[in-house]
Amino acid sequence: MQTTKESISNWLMTLQDNICAALEQADGLAVFKEDKWERQEGGGGRTRIIEEGAVIEKGGVNYSAVHGRVPSFLLNESQHSISENKVQTDDTFYATGVSIVIHPKSPMVPIIHMNVRYFEMSNGVKWLGGGIDLTPHYVKDEDARFFHQALKTVCDKHHPSYYKRFKTWADDYFFIRHRNETRGVGGIFFDRLYSTEEMSFEKNLDFWKDTGLAFAPVYVELITRNAKLPYGEKERNWQLIRRGRYVEFNLVYDKGTKFGLETNGRIESILMSLPKNASWVYDYTPEENSWESKTLSKLTRGIDWVN
Amino acid sequence: MQTTKESISNWLMTLQDNICAALEQADGLAVFKEDKWERQEGGGGRTRIIEEGAVIEKGGVNYSAVHGRVPSFLLNESQHSISENKVQTDDTFYATGVSIVIHPKSPMVPIIHMNVRYFEMSNGVKWLGGGIDLTPHYVKDEDARFFHQALKTVCDKHHPSYYKRFKTWADDYFFIRHRNETRGVGGIFFDRLYSTEEMSFEKNLDFWKDTGLAFAPVYVELITRNAKLPYGEKERNWQLIRRGRYVEFNLVYDKGTKFGLETNGRIESILMSLPKNASWVYDYTPEENSWESKTLSKLTRGIDWVN
Repeated sequence: MQTTKESISNWLMTLQDNICAALEQADGLAVFKEDKWERQEGGGGRTRIIEEGAVIEKGGVNYSAVHGRVPSFLLNESQHSISENKVQTDDTFYATGVSIVIHPKSPMVPIIHMNVRYFEMSNGVKWLGGGIDLTPHYVKDEDARFFHQALKTVCDKHHPSYYKRFKTWADDYFFIRHRNETRGVGGIFFDRLYSTEEMSFEKNLDFWKDTGLAFAPVYVELITRNAKLPYGEKERNWQLIRRGRYVEFNLVYDKGTKFGLETNGRIESILMSLPKNASWVYDYTPEENSWESKTLSKLTRGIDWVN
Repeated sequence: MQTTKESISNWLMTLQDNICAALEQADGLAVFKEDKWERQEGGGGRTRIIEEGAVIEKGGVNYSAVHGRVPSFLLNESQHSISENKVQTDDTFYATGVSIVIHPKSPMVPIIHMNVRYFEMSNGVKWLGGGIDLTPHYVKDEDARFFHQALKTVCDKHHPSYYKRFKTWADDYFFIRHRNETRGVGGIFFDRLYSTEEMSFEKNLDFWKDTGLAFAPVYVELITRNAKLPYGEKERNWQLIRRGRYVEFNLVYDKGTKFGLETNGRIESILMSLPKNASWVYDYTPEENSWESKTLSKLTRGIDWVN
């Protein structure tokens, strides 16, 4: 079957369905509520939100497929593009993807984010982007290793350099510069994956699909490992502070969020990534040698989790 | 006495002292804790934080005076400056100010923000900036009128056009574009107040000082009016949602915050403006005709509160 934007969008809708089913089963209590929305300029989406579950406090699994005239920043940028297909002012674009953020109830379960996106223009230029990253409130080395190993397995299946390249990209992308700390333990991040001589579009598409498919089993395993662990008020307070950092990253740095806010996107779908609640305590410093302080020491770029 | 940067900084330190004393008295329980800090490139500040009071949940009254080489964005900008004193690369700057954000415990008491700042360069260019704005969790018309009337009185004493001009500026500045709502009921905001033929630097300085001096009596009156009013869980939840919007404004739009984050400022002093806690509820819509929904209808630009 030939790959078309329709076949990619259909694949993404099925991915959304399957991930929602897996998360509902892992949660055991809450179910997703769907909001269908339309975009005035073309296209729309299916926002699915889960709240007040047994495991998940607040999460979203969003699908969208929007189209229209190519935004002006891409017109300007195309002057420097690697592609020879210059963008014309009457060219149109089509962008489709699935975005996920899950904020669990328990501070023992990590926050997770996943995104897979596809972009094409009527001049024939097209690319893939995506990634998965993990934000534990408390870093557990064995979980971080398990997570990175799962992503490395996906990458290695398709290209020997992808894991190293996209792991470094995630370290750099999910970095809260003003705090000099990473958002979590990273993962993989890639953008503008074009077809090359070595990796055809179809080959990259297979890698990209495997990234999306890796999400549910990996996160369900992390839930299984951690959701029943005990915690108290101290751990809950630390979770709220870590969520505050998550809010800082998403509102100050995240390109998807900024793009959505600037281009008049559907606000409630964009800001579903924010936690139910978060807190800021002036100059909070965890006790030396505490799990909190060990966690901070691991929120840094360049940690090799798979060797 | 001649006005110098030292005399302005001294005046600001006294203002900080007096405002802290007035707020401690109004709170009756908590006291400010001071952190003195130094900036590697020159200058420093006195950050004063109050937490877990009877009235104030979290607040900061910060003084700073920093100096150094003129930042590059001002060098570029000076090409278009109204001043004929072009900035040279070896010119230095001096910036001093007092910044306040108070997050009260009770949703019945409004959040308040005040800032007065002075900036000068070694080439002789200098300007004043500042403002006060009010963010009630629940808009009470009589409080908004009282607040705006107090600011108008300050403005009218110095120049007949200042209130209208600076009130409009505040409406436009404290606007959360992606929500299409203002942060609160506004107030006054002004920046780069240079000396003009009509208003000398000394005259503008008097206006600017009166703005700073207006803060304590106005906010203490608003505390007196509202701190004893009853409220329950419903009002507390709404307060957390409104605080979420405050976080969105400060991290996405506030120029002072952005400047601080980009120029490696003292993070804990910059982000003291964030509340102790805040919340985000997916697609929250208050009941029709509720106080919450009436409040939303008043978070809009262009309301004339003094006529």
